[in-house]
Amino acid sequence: MAVQVTTTWLGDMRFESTNPSGHNLFMDAGEESGGKGEGYRPKALMLSGLAGCSGLDVASLIKKMKLEVDNLKIDIDANLTEEHPKYFDKVVMSFHFYGDNLDEKKLQKAVDLSVEKYCGVMEMFRQFAEVSVETHFHKN
Amino acid sequence: MAVQVTTTWLGDMRFESTNPSGHNLFMDAGEESGGKGEGYRPKALMLSGLAGCSGLDVASLIKKMKLEVDNLKIDIDANLTEEHPKYFDKVVMSFHFYGDNLDEKKLQKAVDLSVEKYCGVMEMFRQFAEVSVETHFHKN
Repeated sequence: MAVQVTTTWLGDMRFESTNPSGHNLFMDAGEESGGKGEGYRPKALMLSGLAGCSGLDVASLIKKMKLEVDNLKIDIDANLTEEHPKYFDKVVMSFHFYGDNLDEKKLQKAVDLSVEKYCGVMEMFRQFAEVSVETHFHKN
Repeated sequence: MAVQVTTTWLGDMRFESTNPSGHNLFMDAGEESGGKGEGYRPKALMLSGLAGCSGLDVASLIKKMKLEVDNLKIDIDANLTEEHPKYFDKVVMSFHFYGDNLDEKKLQKAVDLSVEKYCGVMEMFRQFAEVSVETHFHKN
């Protein structure tokens, strides 16, 4: 399937990018890199893409398996290499489930299904980074 | 350098993600996947990240080399595989420079420096996709 994105320079370090959703997004460099911080940092969008892709799988499985979850938070902690080209070489992705009635076994199964089978962004990340996935359960 | 992003489930298929810029972003699945389309599709954010990362390099070099460019547009056309996990296996990135006084040689040099040396997102993409880069020059 073809996925197309067009990105237009707005001058200085600002760019506007399309998205298949129809919602455009703005990117900018930080002040330390000559920008004004008036938009997203592009590299970190990769981490949101990873959390979003896997999060959508898990949300979908929570609904399908009729699981009770009050809240779900996904923390990503990535290391960017020091030398150019700077890429993410280590990524820790932590799923935090909150609720008084969590089915830990099934939620772990949902995370595993996403990470091992469904999440295409995770598959891409595995090609350049050492990725580890953690699952934590919290009572409210 | 550590880069951290926290993504919070908002219910249904919606997620809110932080960005080091301080600007949060919203993601959602499309209607065909049980969402309402009220946010960015996460996978396509990877393509914006690629265009933004390389675009920032080129914008920075345009300034440094004092080049005259009226407009710059970056088209990305990616193929998503059909089987799970669905990832981008082929990516074509096309730089379009617009202007009446384009220094084609130096602009090509700027693109090459980004693609071959500076752009970390490009380095990540090369690990999972066959990437080709095109440069086009247009008079206004």
